Amino acid sequence: MAYELFYWPQIPGRGEFVRLALEEAGADYVDVCRVKGRGTRAMMTAMYGKDVARPPFAAPFLRDGEVVIGQTANILLYLGGRLKLAPRDEAGKLWTHQIQLTIADCAAEAHDTHHPIAVELYYEDQKPEAKRRAKSFREERIPKFLDWFEAILDRNPSGPAHLVGRKLTYADLSLYCLVDGLCYAFPRAMAGQLPKRPKVAALAEAVRRRPRIAAYLGSPRRAPWSEQDLFRHYPELDGPPREGPA
Amino acid sequence: MAYELFYWPQIPGRGEFVRLALEEAGADYVDVCRVKGRGTRAMMTAMYGKDVARPPFAAPFLRDGEVVIGQTANILLYLGGRLKLAPRDEAGKLWTHQIQLTIADCAAEAHDTHHPIAVELYYEDQKPEAKRRAKSFREERIPKFLDWFEAILDRNPSGPAHLVGRKLTYADLSLYCLVDGLCYAFPRAMAGQLPKRPKVAALAEAVRRRPRIAAYLGSPRRAPWSEQDLFRHYPELDGPPREGPA
Repeated sequence: MAYELFYWPQIPGRGEFVRLALEEAGADYVDVCRVKGRGTRAMMTAMYGKDVARPPFAAPFLRDGEVVIGQTANILLYLGGRLKLAPRDEAGKLWTHQIQLTIADCAAEAHDTHHPIAVELYYEDQKPEAKRRAKSFREERIPKFLDWFEAILDRNPSGPAHLVGRKLTYADLSLYCLVDGLCYAFPRAMAGQLPKRPKVAALAEAVRRRPRIAAYLGSPRRAPWSEQDLFRHYPELDGPPREGPA
Repeated sequence: MAYELFYWPQIPGRGEFVRLALEEAGADYVDVCRVKGRGTRAMMTAMYGKDVARPPFAAPFLRDGEVVIGQTANILLYLGGRLKLAPRDEAGKLWTHQIQLTIADCAAEAHDTHHPIAVELYYEDQKPEAKRRAKSFREERIPKFLDWFEAILDRNPSGPAHLVGRKLTYADLSLYCLVDGLCYAFPRAMAGQLPKRPKVAALAEAVRRRPRIAAYLGSPRRAPWSEQDLFRHYPELDGPPREGPA
């Protein structure tokens, strides 16, 4: 039976981390909210129905037969072994998941640059705060996260082609997704910072060129990033062209 | 061999979620940074040493022989089975982890009420923003999180004494820790809101009274919450006495 992914239909968002794993594996899946006649109503029922025993707190979530799994990193933990996108040994599994959780932390901080005060308010209602938070994110946090990814690629005993071991994992796909989102939201800052982390840049590029990922990115299944999403491009939140201490 | 927990020595912080599990299980563990002669230097070496193959991005992390595990929820995923604080079936394990990740999200949002702009700045440098963010957290986010915890307790087929099944899990311990931290940081808001979620309140109280938890809380191993920590009490960030729409 096909995996059922539940996420907002118009945006990549956090659902994209899951989509990339499903697409790379060539898995049979349904993006439920994009199916005509189901839409977000199906998601609301699966989340807020009074008879749902284990309701997810938020989207995305995945349904696999009777099992419903929420929290992006938890979904990938579940899918990792099934899609052959995670190591088999326990330590390797946990390390892959740990990297994923750190990618999720960085994505959450990227989100909070445009919503530093409240998710229920518009960006326009928190613009001065967003400018301050974005400056800190660009100057302090992006370098710290990128340096960590570069370091763990550098220290992978199997070489820097992958984050974990010698084979592709969902963490590699997610790091590509994070870098892609950050480059969309902060093109000037990332133009200064990414080239200083050549292993991260090379991994992101290698993922983007994988046949199934490239095919997916060129397909109508891939929604573009936008200002309704996790990663948003507001020029006033990006840095000047040459900014970016490493 | 004893588990080695690495975390800032003076505060409960995120390390507390791990300590509670270790304490409840009566596990043999060392709180490394509190050991005379080791201190935070031992933690810095384990994190930033050039020869560390899998460096954690941040504390807390746990060392178990050769394995080093970072990210609080990931540590509990690892310990859950070993300390008999998680279900054995895969779906139960993932559900427990999903709840833990949602507790972590709420804790991170609580942190951001006092640091909405930048972790590297003092609270005093982001006070107006903190007031705005705290208002949204108290009025929109605390109710949403508490309602979800109440709902999943209510829907547990084994009854509302525990979050998952009929036995104690690390998620129960962590929910107590979250509620305790929120009550410390937002006593007025929580006085209005917690009684409206009686199952959450009852679970937190039951955990607090467990013999090993009570003994731990009364011991010098338990550091008090403070204004250097994840949950901070600034009266100006708390609500008026009767506030708190449910």
